[in-house]
Amino acid sequence: MRLSQMLFVTLRDDPAEAELPSHKLLLRAGYIRRIASGIYSYLPLMWRVLQKVSAIVREEMNRSGALECLLPQLQPAELWQESGRWDTYTKAEGIMFSLTDRAERQLALGPTHEEVITTLAKDLIRSYRQLPVHLYQIQTKFRDEIRPRFGLMRGREFIMKDGYSFHADVASLKETYQVMYDTYSRILQRCGLTFRAVEADSGAIGGSGSHEFMVLAAAGEDEVLYTADGQYAANVEKAVSLPPDPVPTTYKKVATLDTPNTPTIDALVEHLQCHPSQIVKNVLYRAVFDNGRVGLVLVSIRGDQEVNSVKLHNTLTSLAPNYGGTKLLDLRVADANTVQEWAATPIPFGYIGPDLEDAVIKADPQIIPQWIRIADRTVTELKRFITGANRDQQHRVGVNWGKACPLPAIVADVRKAQAGDRACHDPTQHLETARGIEIGHIFQLGTKYSEAMKATYTNEQGEEVPLVMGCYGIGVSRLAQAAVEQHHDENGIIWPLAIAPYQVIIVVPNIEDSQQMQVATDLYEGLQAAGIEVLLDDRDERAGVKFKDADLIGIPYRLVTGRAIANGEVELVIRATGAKSTLPLTEVVRYLQKEIAEQLAQ
Amino acid sequence: MRLSQMLFVTLRDDPAEAELPSHKLLLRAGYIRRIASGIYSYLPLMWRVLQKVSAIVREEMNRSGALECLLPQLQPAELWQESGRWDTYTKAEGIMFSLTDRAERQLALGPTHEEVITTLAKDLIRSYRQLPVHLYQIQTKFRDEIRPRFGLMRGREFIMKDGYSFHADVASLKETYQVMYDTYSRILQRCGLTFRAVEADSGAIGGSGSHEFMVLAAAGEDEVLYTADGQYAANVEKAVSLPPDPVPTTYKKVATLDTPNTPTIDALVEHLQCHPSQIVKNVLYRAVFDNGRVGLVLVSIRGDQEVNSVKLHNTLTSLAPNYGGTKLLDLRVADANTVQEWAATPIPFGYIGPDLEDAVIKADPQIIPQWIRIADRTVTELKRFITGANRDQQHRVGVNWGKACPLPAIVADVRKAQAGDRACHDPTQHLETARGIEIGHIFQLGTKYSEAMKATYTNEQGEEVPLVMGCYGIGVSRLAQAAVEQHHDENGIIWPLAIAPYQVIIVVPNIEDSQQMQVATDLYEGLQAAGIEVLLDDRDERAGVKFKDADLIGIPYRLVTGRAIANGEVELVIRATGAKSTLPLTEVVRYLQKEIAEQLAQ
Repeated sequence: MRLSQMLFVTLRDDPAEAELPSHKLLLRAGYIRRIASGIYSYLPLMWRVLQKVSAIVREEMNRSGALECLLPQLQPAELWQESGRWDTYTKAEGIMFSLTDRAERQLALGPTHEEVITTLAKDLIRSYRQLPVHLYQIQTKFRDEIRPRFGLMRGREFIMKDGYSFHADVASLKETYQVMYDTYSRILQRCGLTFRAVEADSGAIGGSGSHEFMVLAAAGEDEVLYTADGQYAANVEKAVSLPPDPVPTTYKKVATLDTPNTPTIDALVEHLQCHPSQIVKNVLYRAVFDNGRVGLVLVSIRGDQEVNSVKLHNTLTSLAPNYGGTKLLDLRVADANTVQEWAATPIPFGYIGPDLEDAVIKADPQIIPQWIRIADRTVTELKRFITGANRDQQHRVGVNWGKACPLPAIVADVRKAQAGDRACHDPTQHLETARGIEIGHIFQLGTKYSEAMKATYTNEQGEEVPLVMGCYGIGVSRLAQAAVEQHHDENGIIWPLAIAPYQVIIVVPNIEDSQQMQVATDLYEGLQAAGIEVLLDDRDERAGVKFKDADLIGIPYRLVTGRAIANGEVELVIRATGAKSTLPLTEVVRYLQKEIAEQLAQ
Repeated sequence: MRLSQMLFVTLRDDPAEAELPSHKLLLRAGYIRRIASGIYSYLPLMWRVLQKVSAIVREEMNRSGALECLLPQLQPAELWQESGRWDTYTKAEGIMFSLTDRAERQLALGPTHEEVITTLAKDLIRSYRQLPVHLYQIQTKFRDEIRPRFGLMRGREFIMKDGYSFHADVASLKETYQVMYDTYSRILQRCGLTFRAVEADSGAIGGSGSHEFMVLAAAGEDEVLYTADGQYAANVEKAVSLPPDPVPTTYKKVATLDTPNTPTIDALVEHLQCHPSQIVKNVLYRAVFDNGRVGLVLVSIRGDQEVNSVKLHNTLTSLAPNYGGTKLLDLRVADANTVQEWAATPIPFGYIGPDLEDAVIKADPQIIPQWIRIADRTVTELKRFITGANRDQQHRVGVNWGKACPLPAIVADVRKAQAGDRACHDPTQHLETARGIEIGHIFQLGTKYSEAMKATYTNEQGEEVPLVMGCYGIGVSRLAQAAVEQHHDENGIIWPLAIAPYQVIIVVPNIEDSQQMQVATDLYEGLQAAGIEVLLDDRDERAGVKFKDADLIGIPYRLVTGRAIANGEVELVIRATGAKSTLPLTEVVRYLQKEIAEQLAQ
């Protein structure tokens, strides 16, 4: 393609709307344009990148035996009501766009396709003889994000590959899950990305096990914890670890002390000259179940540890049936700002103990009248610990769990693992931390959707049983931007060869020079004929502008038809390293063909 | 692909939801499944067809010099308000889905992309040096159809290629328009379809000239009028012609006659023993302009002719400024059912003359107080004609246009051309009729959108002027179904080779026969290695079922590893003709390779 014939516009300055380097670069280099918050046009260069990523995804998916299809983006609300996800996805923090058609029927704009595919499977799959089967699609999805940001990273309209597999049993699911784990690893490798597959929380998709594929980048939204031996890696939301051992206290018996102005752990540690691991910290949460009931949650955790809200959310979801609900709709800290809503008496924030009385909760039919008391595992073994006295400006010390201060009935791991913690699989290994961009997520769904939507098949014994499902998603547009986030420098993008919009750019420093133009045109045609994707910068611009633009748009190989052509040579610049060399004109095509083939084969 | 590993389910019976043969066949053969009214899943076989159509479209578009991109499906309402199309597209009969995001901002779900692309062009195009440029995309579009039907023909979610070109002047636009005309012709030809390019009305898209590409099929929704000499073809909505000459009357002077029970042309002809071409028929319409004003329209047309409502709509749109509006929102016949809404006095329906008094219109600030009187060209030359007396049960005869019965001030062609009419370009040619399915539509938009949205560029003279635009659409999913509508028989689909999901199907009559399976597997692998797309029917089914299914799904070449293999031969059946032959096993790959290459090259 000749750049003069392409709608090619680069921006000199960083666009105000962008924060991440990759977002700025994609805007500046003319890859994308914003049309509304979280909604972008993919310009021709970007579209080539997306097509290349899609082609790699498609090749690897087809190789795995999955079948490509295309499911509707408009989805009837009834399907989501059947699966029980309509409310979660459309109300409150729900991220699904919904709309009404002219017949006043509600439709959703698909953020994911479990409901549609399960309906289809119910229609098409009758017998175990049709199993396993795996359908996938590459499609634009929609999310009504609370805060769209970071360009294509968290957009409201984005391209995904999503696949759904159906199985006769869990063993078959696990087999395909492993194939997908390998397929995703191969896709990211082929795209030239450094990544880590990590254990992950299954979130709103559900199911029994899942892994995320994280492209490592300093600006990643996710924190990954891993061990150097490569045996463990998990999203911090999901990560488990062994915390440091607590420092023993010297208290011999229970005493209540005046501890003025110590509502925080730091202040208390300073005041008592103790270690934070000696304290039982008590954090209050307000939970709303899907039956509308409000539960007040008191989490007791060691003073040197933090609550992991995802783990707490999952624990409360599993408790929902105790309170007449099926799941949690909302969870937030219940602090002095919301106290009037649920408290019958003043609450001594900062001085609360695990045994705070139920009576402080306001009598209200909507509010569960007892505390939902949860002890994190870290507090169960503590002896002679320090905790709040349930009275303002006072703490107790030397407390043991027992009649006077009972251990909460629910003990769970709701602690946030952190870098430095010992690994569970091998306590000599310590967790390290990295930032990552979630590009892929694979799930063992089990029968969550097939049971809800009655998608069954007849097994070998002639019984009708629910299909066992897996689902697998990879963000195509997000991957493209993550590649930029991982591969750029101060001058612009450095595309990995496999997903670069073009492999080679020929820069003609002076298009008025007919010899330069002739050499460039010959090279252009020669490279094209050899199947190499090449851009010819034949624009009427200064050489400096062209070099800057070439760096900015990040084409892996740059050929310059400058002074060297007098010697029958052309300059070759490698974008990634900046390395310059000259090549005889007669060698260029052969050299690049070999170089590119080798690179892509890696 | 092995059929046993594909989610392959055919239906024995015609599905109740389908009317058109193509719709029935796509459902029965397992290509598509309905998820909601007008919304379909494309199963793996269908997806292959759509990918093939898309690939042909992409190749031809790229060859034309157009650049592929991808624009958002979610479009901010402001863009449509800027172009002035929001109301037309979302209200009343409007076909655009709209929705509201969590910030209560209105968004549209794109049925077309003039607004988005014009905004983008405004941002990217500054100078004539960037022109011409043509961007296209292949994308799922949405229409909130009043009556979704015929499967993929008139769905609410469908795949289109839409392209938009930008020019410095009309000459450049016309050049690209011609290139697109040729490109579309080549696309349809390569897809193996019989089609006709016809002059068309520009409808809600607007602009000065347009052509539709019609795939000919008996069940087509559109009527095409054309001449045998190939010089003229138009959609009936747009077609012009010379009507037959009127039969002269013998009346010498004006007289008012009692004509009881003659409210229709037929009854009047019978009563007066006259010819319908001697009558001036007067049809009442109720028009609503976009400023909310209601206009009452009196169309006078020859009794043997019909009003073309599209032409009338366009005529009224051009008159809108006379009544303070900019366009027409609604047009319908104003008959006895709606009379109380607009009439001040009883209206003598069936006996109305062109000179019906204004006073019959109700005084109402919303209603324009005079008739909008339009004479079709056919009535202007009539002499001594027959028309209504504006009194119940009476007609006038022997009328001439003049003071007593003035010719309406607006004379226009609002007549529906019909088969048998003489052609304008050559009156010795007569119009013939055919049914077609509209697959493509190309438009010379001019500056309609660039002016409304202030998308300008600086021309060679340094002036800022609006961009000149063209737009070009082709229905990818509709094309695929139209191919079936044009190519099927009582046994199933007959795919044109270029868009068949697979080129060859190998049917193994008996998979228990290890020799058959061996031969079939060898053939399967040999054909695949030769780059031929092949399905292997290795299902555990009776041979009869397999033959029926092979016919139903319409793969062009069928190989049967039946008895002939004993002689080292295999049976070849051509789906389109049913022709059977045998081929030596050693020849199969070479033969099919040559045959397929030749067919695709045509």
